Amino acid sequence: MIEKLSASEAFINPTIVVENAGMKKLILAAAVVSGLIAALPAAAQFQKPEDAIKYRKAAFNVMATHFGRVGAMANGRVPFDAKAVAQNAEIATMMSPLPYSAFGEGTDKGDTKAKPEVWTEGDKFRAAAAKMQEEMTKLNAAAKTGNLDAIKTAFGPVGQACKACHDHFRKE
Amino acid sequence: MIEKLSASEAFINPTIVVENAGMKKLILAAAVVSGLIAALPAAAQFQKPEDAIKYRKAAFNVMATHFGRVGAMANGRVPFDAKAVAQNAEIATMMSPLPYSAFGEGTDKGDTKAKPEVWTEGDKFRAAAAKMQEEMTKLNAAAKTGNLDAIKTAFGPVGQACKACHDHFRKE
Repeated sequence: MIEKLSASEAFINPTIVVENAGMKKLILAAAVVSGLIAALPAAAQFQKPEDAIKYRKAAFNVMATHFGRVGAMANGRVPFDAKAVAQNAEIATMMSPLPYSAFGEGTDKGDTKAKPEVWTEGDKFRAAAAKMQEEMTKLNAAAKTGNLDAIKTAFGPVGQACKACHDHFRKE
Repeated sequence: MIEKLSASEAFINPTIVVENAGMKKLILAAAVVSGLIAALPAAAQFQKPEDAIKYRKAAFNVMATHFGRVGAMANGRVPFDAKAVAQNAEIATMMSPLPYSAFGEGTDKGDTKAKPEVWTEGDKFRAAAAKMQEEMTKLNAAAKTGNLDAIKTAFGPVGQACKACHDHFRKE
């Protein structure tokens, strides 16, 4: 199976905001690696559609786990730890393009909550994914500053981007 | 649940071999990000043991998917594409420390193939994980050179490290 959706089409977000000169090196590193990931080949292959479905769920799980840890601190459920926030935001950001290589042809059936709209409204789906990645990248930059207020401000829009996509493209 | 195993204990592998001066920036970036990931806090939290189990399976799935794509080219099943090999090796390397934050207390039961030896022989398990990460880092460096022979040479030891750990610590 050859994947039709490509990270390089719509999921690239090169916006890296340097908020803190001391973190430039890390942010540069994140930018370079994000670029690597964003440039994933269009022809990423899965042996079977169910492999693609399992993979995209796995990538979403890892992303959501680390994003959730940022949220727990942004929302005060867990004591704020600037280093942990930065680490978790970094991993969530690196994961953010990965699932979208796995919505290729034939992956609309099976053990998935993806609605047909993922494929019938492909442009809208890609735009929703790109929006999430853009907001995640901003959260990542905020996390690197270690400023809790900045992190709180950047956290909400990521959650809203997740929800907007889930509401329209994911079954309950 | 507070996790007992920490990436920062045994899973750090700072060995980054610069094989190609032109790739220095990318390799530096990988080193920095690997360092970030490797320094995951010991107290990485999961709400429930089953969340940890699901997460570690997810992280292994993503790692194995990208490692498998490197293997398909190293073994000639898929035409060699130096850029794709480099991208996939990079992602596999970034994923390689993640699962090991999720073998904490209480995660030995449930929907898992992990054998009790993961916990009763913790030092050996951590050493096996570290070995895999070390070999993966070498494969990543080889992949960045674009030299197929170097990639073939580096691929085998990663597969062997995976297998050695599976044989001892994973149920059939």
